[in-house]
Amino acid sequence: MTGFAAVDVIRAKRDGGVLSDAQIDWVVSAYTRGDVADEQMAALAMAILLRGMTGPEIARWTAAMIASGERLDLSAVPRPTVDKHSTGGVGDKITLPLTPLVAACGAAVPQLSGRGLGHTGGTLDKLEAIPGWRATLSNREFLTQLAEVGAVVCAAGAELAPADRKLYALRDVTGTVEAIPLIASSIMSKKIAEGTGALVLDVKVGSGAFMKSADDARELARTMVELGGAHGVRTVALLTDMSTPLGLAVGNAVEVAESVEVLAGGGPADVVELTLALAREMLGAVGLGDVDPAEALKDGRAMDSWRAMVRAQGGDPEASLPAAAETEVVRAESDGYVTGVDAYGVGLAAWRLGAGRARKEDPVSAAAGVVLHRRPGDPVRAGDVLYELRADDAARIPAAAADAAGAVTVAATPPAATPLVLERIG
Amino acid sequence: MTGFAAVDVIRAKRDGGVLSDAQIDWVVSAYTRGDVADEQMAALAMAILLRGMTGPEIARWTAAMIASGERLDLSAVPRPTVDKHSTGGVGDKITLPLTPLVAACGAAVPQLSGRGLGHTGGTLDKLEAIPGWRATLSNREFLTQLAEVGAVVCAAGAELAPADRKLYALRDVTGTVEAIPLIASSIMSKKIAEGTGALVLDVKVGSGAFMKSADDARELARTMVELGGAHGVRTVALLTDMSTPLGLAVGNAVEVAESVEVLAGGGPADVVELTLALAREMLGAVGLGDVDPAEALKDGRAMDSWRAMVRAQGGDPEASLPAAAETEVVRAESDGYVTGVDAYGVGLAAWRLGAGRARKEDPVSAAAGVVLHRRPGDPVRAGDVLYELRADDAARIPAAAADAAGAVTVAATPPAATPLVLERIG
Repeated sequence: MTGFAAVDVIRAKRDGGVLSDAQIDWVVSAYTRGDVADEQMAALAMAILLRGMTGPEIARWTAAMIASGERLDLSAVPRPTVDKHSTGGVGDKITLPLTPLVAACGAAVPQLSGRGLGHTGGTLDKLEAIPGWRATLSNREFLTQLAEVGAVVCAAGAELAPADRKLYALRDVTGTVEAIPLIASSIMSKKIAEGTGALVLDVKVGSGAFMKSADDARELARTMVELGGAHGVRTVALLTDMSTPLGLAVGNAVEVAESVEVLAGGGPADVVELTLALAREMLGAVGLGDVDPAEALKDGRAMDSWRAMVRAQGGDPEASLPAAAETEVVRAESDGYVTGVDAYGVGLAAWRLGAGRARKEDPVSAAAGVVLHRRPGDPVRAGDVLYELRADDAARIPAAAADAAGAVTVAATPPAATPLVLERIG
Repeated sequence: MTGFAAVDVIRAKRDGGVLSDAQIDWVVSAYTRGDVADEQMAALAMAILLRGMTGPEIARWTAAMIASGERLDLSAVPRPTVDKHSTGGVGDKITLPLTPLVAACGAAVPQLSGRGLGHTGGTLDKLEAIPGWRATLSNREFLTQLAEVGAVVCAAGAELAPADRKLYALRDVTGTVEAIPLIASSIMSKKIAEGTGALVLDVKVGSGAFMKSADDARELARTMVELGGAHGVRTVALLTDMSTPLGLAVGNAVEVAESVEVLAGGGPADVVELTLALAREMLGAVGLGDVDPAEALKDGRAMDSWRAMVRAQGGDPEASLPAAAETEVVRAESDGYVTGVDAYGVGLAAWRLGAGRARKEDPVSAAAGVVLHRRPGDPVRAGDVLYELRADDAARIPAAAADAAGAVTVAATPPAATPLVLERIG
């Protein structure tokens, strides 16, 4: 492959041009090996953010990111493989009940995750609230568990899309995270490299999501569905509402507890609804559309699958989860209805309580978080508990309380109901 | 001063916002001391290039760059001070005759220069073709020479606008040179920090210039004139044509020789015209508008001033200039008129011959360059010399010859005459 001058590639995109396949292959590969400097890639990322990329450019960029590392081969797994990716939201613990549920229905779910940098921890942080559970598996452990249990949630290895790992860290400090071509290629390069046969995307829209508008979310979803198809991964996306947190629990241990309720056949209606909607898409994508996942929740097969998945990674599914040292209970001041629970405000409160991290090297608190007692539309009487704030350290509570107070509103008339699943693309 | 998160400043500009004074002061200062990383400034520079800056933002950015270092005090110089800055063009040796000429007319010219990164060397590279001449002076030497000779051309010290030095190097490798707010603030921060009382800008337009269109050149000129005024430096700009090289010589020693011809009362008409036009603006800007610089060229005062200036910096104005080991003479193939001499093509040829540098650490050849024998509009006969290519090394000639051949055109009818000074802004 011939070399280019980085500055010529930057200028081409800066001036609104379309990068050639050779330019894209070179710049991604040269950046990964350090021949293109961070400041050059930062300028290019900003130019991509402001100038955009065509579909073929995004496809090539994604292919170059995949080619920067290994692509796993899951052909030895004796079940169809299907994964789910969510663009992230407040209280989004869906991976926890969904992965064992889909495995219980006959598919294998190879969920390789990163660490969260958002309001709350990522899926790995949540599962690490379970005593003994470990996120890191060798390739062999991963493949064995996938074949035997059908459900794995573990840390993605450094060999998958290393270009993305380096680029993501750069985007995080240079104000270039919010570029749809770069978001789409980042997500899809990792999922395609992971080797899954099919993929269902949960693209969040609303105050607690990365995409604040349905138009942006739809563009991102379409871009990713096309990228999956171009790489032979059957891909479907649901656009789902993230103006209100999912379920009642926002944090780490509290979200594990809520997930276990869902696996036991209970849990908040919205968490159950979204878990089943995604499970049906995942099963449909691998030819198992006749299997009803609601049955597997009712009859205990999903819970069995969860226990097997947790145990396979050293966790004790029966152990008590960490409890918070400090709890503040907030009550309604008047009678009426909960009219809104703003996802962004609740997410920020949970983050201030210690459930999320500001920098990637920060620890998260397993026990911290927000537990809602009421959701939008629920009637309340003065004195009823609206929510609890939990933390390891009382000093974290006042600032979180201010955010939460601004996020939860009560008024005399109930709000209009809003749908959870907004649109299907695929 | 309060701190900011660099990513918030980047995002504000990325999204088309106006940066606050405090954000600008902080980001320039934090970048200079290393608290804002190169990749963050690169992303910000690209956002500025694509989103632009308001007049007040550019003024504050410039003030912050000046505040990153020292501002020289020239109040002890017993003459009015006035400087000239050119945005750079092919064959632009005007500083060489202009500086001693204006000094001979009663002003003092404190010309602090950088090294060239363009087609040909910068002014310092040209003067270094003179045996013994040195570009680096101490502050005391600079002030003494300015007071006694009235003319100094030397290297700018590291203490003037260090933010610009760092930012310029970054822009050079990140495709963010071509941002008018950053060009204007870069030029003006150095000239204002240098302490000059007045400033005349020669903003070039055309194929051999940085600004290819008159609209861009006019915008840059207006921005700089306003910046000068805001900092108490009376500033005027001329927009001048750079579609054809200035004069007949393009290189280092060859441009010194041509400058000496002008100082001796001869030289190419366009070089004389522009030297006098700029001299009149400079003298007018400091209340010496009654002095006729053409007289000082005729009666030898400008040449005396040149000799004094060269000697003061260790140079021997009588010494022979370096001669090239290799010369290729190119002749006209047919009778007719020279219809065009493209500045970009001739500049590129000179650069390939060794007159300019690709990286800032590269050496330049004193003797290399292009010497035109005909200019646009001149009649030629088949066999007449059109131009010479000079180099230290014959291997450099073939590629340069191809560029030059494409740049010089001969046809049966003469071209329309084009003006050299296009517009005055100030």
